[in-house]
Amino acid sequence: MNLVAVGTVAFDSIETPFAKKDRVIGGAATYITLAASHFVKNSGLISVIGDDFPEEMLQEMKSRGIDQDGLQIKKGEKSFFWAGKYHYDLNSRDTLITDLNVLANFDPIVPEAYQNCDFLMLGNLAPAVQMRVIDQIPNRPKLVVLDTMNFWMDIAWEDLMKVIAKIDVLTINDEEARQLSKEHSLVRAARKILAMGPKYLIIKKGEHGALLFDKESVFFAPALPLEEVADPTGAGDTFAGGFIGYLAQTQNISFDNMKRAVIVGSAMASFTCEKFGPERLLELTKEEITARIEQFVSLTEFEQILEL
Amino acid sequence: MNLVAVGTVAFDSIETPFAKKDRVIGGAATYITLAASHFVKNSGLISVIGDDFPEEMLQEMKSRGIDQDGLQIKKGEKSFFWAGKYHYDLNSRDTLITDLNVLANFDPIVPEAYQNCDFLMLGNLAPAVQMRVIDQIPNRPKLVVLDTMNFWMDIAWEDLMKVIAKIDVLTINDEEARQLSKEHSLVRAARKILAMGPKYLIIKKGEHGALLFDKESVFFAPALPLEEVADPTGAGDTFAGGFIGYLAQTQNISFDNMKRAVIVGSAMASFTCEKFGPERLLELTKEEITARIEQFVSLTEFEQILEL
Repeated sequence: MNLVAVGTVAFDSIETPFAKKDRVIGGAATYITLAASHFVKNSGLISVIGDDFPEEMLQEMKSRGIDQDGLQIKKGEKSFFWAGKYHYDLNSRDTLITDLNVLANFDPIVPEAYQNCDFLMLGNLAPAVQMRVIDQIPNRPKLVVLDTMNFWMDIAWEDLMKVIAKIDVLTINDEEARQLSKEHSLVRAARKILAMGPKYLIIKKGEHGALLFDKESVFFAPALPLEEVADPTGAGDTFAGGFIGYLAQTQNISFDNMKRAVIVGSAMASFTCEKFGPERLLELTKEEITARIEQFVSLTEFEQILEL
Repeated sequence: MNLVAVGTVAFDSIETPFAKKDRVIGGAATYITLAASHFVKNSGLISVIGDDFPEEMLQEMKSRGIDQDGLQIKKGEKSFFWAGKYHYDLNSRDTLITDLNVLANFDPIVPEAYQNCDFLMLGNLAPAVQMRVIDQIPNRPKLVVLDTMNFWMDIAWEDLMKVIAKIDVLTINDEEARQLSKEHSLVRAARKILAMGPKYLIIKKGEHGALLFDKESVFFAPALPLEEVADPTGAGDTFAGGFIGYLAQTQNISFDNMKRAVIVGSAMASFTCEKFGPERLLELTKEEITARIEQFVSLTEFEQILEL
């Protein structure tokens, strides 16, 4: 298995300043695997759902090479449900409802066929659950990417520190980087966080782009200014899926290739924002992706500054 | 005269979450002309001060080629004074005190030697005052850049519309772009604002960089993640001064050169943030500026994405 992803597969009810939709298909692992499916055709999904999740979506995912031997389906139970409301700037949101449902007792099981994976994406979940996945993979993957959030910093600090020490790339937003490091400057925050274990840190800034740090350097990927943002839900997970999917496709984990992967992830995330739920990820063509990446390239391109 | 700048020359009292300084030298035109002085040696300053403004600073500015025939000194009166307090993110602030003093009755006079200027920078001031300067320049300059703020949108909308119709480049921040256009999407906001008159729009996003729009395209300049931000006061004006200073030096107002000028302005602004007031602008060397611009170049540089 080239890529394995763990995370939620769920329903979201989403309210933006401009529209509202109930029970859209969502979940971190849904966005991650769908985004990655544009780059790799053999990925494995580790998650849990109830018997309320639409079979057509599972079939759609299977047809994209997303193996579901790691997906537990709990009869008579309900899938994870999240409801949130975005602020006017669409860059921040309030959680209205979190119904854990099947997630409350989620014990991930890594099928044997997944245990030799090259790339492992640990989507946002309780750090102890993320650690349970790492513990079931005897041979260390080439690259382990972990996404987390402020909630786990608040209630599961020690578990989070343990799992962060085991991974290669951490993805969080700017406020989370400040909370995790207790530093205001993102440069200092990055230095402290990289001392906690990860070799790379990605700070996601939503409509303001993303920063990729290693110990020596920093790379800045812009976000594409969009004509219309329908719904940013899943943009961060789509970013992660595009990022690790591109790395898994190219089998190259150099810092130079990670820069490209950050651009690819940003391009993929920009599509997700254009419609509610993962709809855009399902209809996207290779041509659209290539054209969008071209837009990202030209967005920051300028000719050399000679005269001073 | 190559470049003429109008704006405040003032004192600022500044409180950040980390430090506090009283009566630092400030003012839009101070930052604009000092930043531009690294690129052009013949600029003219149009402003007004009281007799409380330090003579040494005026001499320092003169030694950098900043002509002061347009600077009115009001005996027995006080210079403009602003006090503000930054929020924790340093990207937003509250105004605590605004003492207009000499600014209350400011009637700008454009000396004859300034009337043939190639580049005109209208720093943030009442739109009617900005218009008074335009009205005194019989031959249209090559490029007129205008900076403004939400305050004038609130209280002087019609005056602002009149002056915006007369300029080439408007610089505002993202919230102001939304207020001015009544559009949330910055892409749509830019389209509406460019229909109001300007050929170019620069949206300044502070620590998140800047966007340059013309009718067809958009360019994104990152902000350099800084180890330490001491005080962002004057960063926007420094950006404007570096931007127009570079254009005035190169005498090239193509969109391609404006992209470079946005990078130069961003580099200059990053220096201003490193210390309180315009201190960094006074000690900067050409070598430091060149090295900083190099950092901006490498910040967004990545190799071509071939495989997909």
